[in-house]
Amino acid sequence: MTGGNQLTVAELGEFRLIDRLVESLPSEIVARPHLSIGVGDDAAVWSPTPGRLCVITTDTLIEDVHFRPAWTDWRSLGHKMLAVNLSDIAAMGAEPVVATVTLGLTGSELVEDLVTLYLGMADLAVGHRLVIAGGDIVRSPSAVTLSVTVVGETDPGYLLTRNGARAGDLIAVSGTLGASAAGLALLEDTSGLKSARTAGLLIGAHLRPIPRIELGNLLARSGATSAMDLSDGLLGDLPKILVASRVSAEIHENQVPILPSVRALFPDRFQEFMLSGGEDYELLFTVPPGFWKSLAQEAKRIGSTITVIGRVVPIDGADPEVYLISPNESRRAVDASAFDHFG
Amino acid sequence: MTGGNQLTVAELGEFRLIDRLVESLPSEIVARPHLSIGVGDDAAVWSPTPGRLCVITTDTLIEDVHFRPAWTDWRSLGHKMLAVNLSDIAAMGAEPVVATVTLGLTGSELVEDLVTLYLGMADLAVGHRLVIAGGDIVRSPSAVTLSVTVVGETDPGYLLTRNGARAGDLIAVSGTLGASAAGLALLEDTSGLKSARTAGLLIGAHLRPIPRIELGNLLARSGATSAMDLSDGLLGDLPKILVASRVSAEIHENQVPILPSVRALFPDRFQEFMLSGGEDYELLFTVPPGFWKSLAQEAKRIGSTITVIGRVVPIDGADPEVYLISPNESRRAVDASAFDHFG
Repeated sequence: MTGGNQLTVAELGEFRLIDRLVESLPSEIVARPHLSIGVGDDAAVWSPTPGRLCVITTDTLIEDVHFRPAWTDWRSLGHKMLAVNLSDIAAMGAEPVVATVTLGLTGSELVEDLVTLYLGMADLAVGHRLVIAGGDIVRSPSAVTLSVTVVGETDPGYLLTRNGARAGDLIAVSGTLGASAAGLALLEDTSGLKSARTAGLLIGAHLRPIPRIELGNLLARSGATSAMDLSDGLLGDLPKILVASRVSAEIHENQVPILPSVRALFPDRFQEFMLSGGEDYELLFTVPPGFWKSLAQEAKRIGSTITVIGRVVPIDGADPEVYLISPNESRRAVDASAFDHFG
Repeated sequence: MTGGNQLTVAELGEFRLIDRLVESLPSEIVARPHLSIGVGDDAAVWSPTPGRLCVITTDTLIEDVHFRPAWTDWRSLGHKMLAVNLSDIAAMGAEPVVATVTLGLTGSELVEDLVTLYLGMADLAVGHRLVIAGGDIVRSPSAVTLSVTVVGETDPGYLLTRNGARAGDLIAVSGTLGASAAGLALLEDTSGLKSARTAGLLIGAHLRPIPRIELGNLLARSGATSAMDLSDGLLGDLPKILVASRVSAEIHENQVPILPSVRALFPDRFQEFMLSGGEDYELLFTVPPGFWKSLAQEAKRIGSTITVIGRVVPIDGADPEVYLISPNESRRAVDASAFDHFG
């Protein structure tokens, strides 16, 4: 990750850095009619839309934990740091309104690289009502730390939570699963797989995930009973809905949507990527069967693909379980202990 | 910083840690009528009060940059990480509503220490309407990183910004200045000053600053023309109001309120602490002279001390200046370049 202009953060100074970053953003992203005050006061100010609910989410990317400078570029990193937050907003059925950004920097970063980071956020923000309303720049002793908080809005009664899944509901996902994990495996790979024709697509899925905001909104208005975004993989995240809703799940392995290129490039690992690979940022949701047909039609209209992968079943015993049904119809309970960042 | 129970974050695991931290909070801080969903979904949800504006602010404390484990305790650290954010809310004249917390942890932290950290936040939150609505726990390679974002509310027309100061306004501060810098100097000191009778008070001012929320609210309703909180010292922060308002300032050095103990313990440094010491988290504000008398009375009624330290004057030249008037009435322009975290 390098830039043409070699001025560092320490050379420019914090206050001029904030100005420089804000100047680099398209003006509609830093000031909007519903936002009274943007960057530069003690706090940013906005007028919530009367009658709507607010939602708030926060996510952090840390160098060498969540990203490697050698594997990404600053523009993609800017995209991703905002995307992972917008994905949480999508999973609530809400629309983003305002974002704050905290950059933890060592001082040796190039100013032009940070401008590029901001442009990556802007790429994603311009398509939405979202305003980037400043934040904080702090010194970090070693690792670059990127924190974003997003506030969104939704209408009362149209809120997607994790605790509404009922036995009999269909379980479905957006897009395909495993592409991000395959992309990460390609970035790690030294055997030449990266030169495959489809490698760029998979690496792109890892570096620049697309938050499913329109789809989340549609789900909230189309009878979905629960939803969340897939950051820790299907088998890592599904249990969170099951625990919150006190239900179990049957998943048909051969119904889980996967890109042909993931299967082709990783014949021994595609199942692991599809079931346990993280960071797809697709939506996982449940919906009563009667709502499916019109939902699928509406999803198609907004350019989203959704696929049924199983169904919600009653708990059989003390705890929620995930039953995986293999292509030969054998049924087994899988260890659904959720992914642990310290495990 | 140690705890009795020796279980580490890595041993307990992320998900059980979140549960443990939330359980440790008084219930009114994690769930309130205006908050639909607290910790544990993709985002927290609340209903903004109809007709009010929202404000958002974020602040981060990083180990060995903003705090040293050897100099603080976890309860004070929890207090401070919330206090520095509430101080920004106070500086806007707003009241806090909801907070999200991101803990960047190495995994070797003791669970009981983090529970104590949360109790430190709770100590401060209970006095307000504030709800702690979850957040994010991430792995940090070395330094503990504590990020808090707070959303507050205020009424349109009662918003304290930095750009309303006008020539002729009085410049005033709450509390006293320099106590936090003196407390930090005591923590660094090895000459025995720490054993002074007043050392605990000053160290407390550094470790557990009090956000001036009620006073900020009062200022917003009592004619104050600008305000901010003092995190970077008087000479570091005042220029931010001056630049935003396009005015200069005269400050009478002997009117700046300072604790007698700061002067007594640091006869050679008290002026530096008072004028340039950071982290007092007092409010700095401007107000037309005609509003002063009733404002001072109201402030007294809510237990706040406010003191006039100078006045706003027109710009004489191209850029805003701070003129310091010494006890012998000599007047000099000071280099008002704001504090830079990378300087």
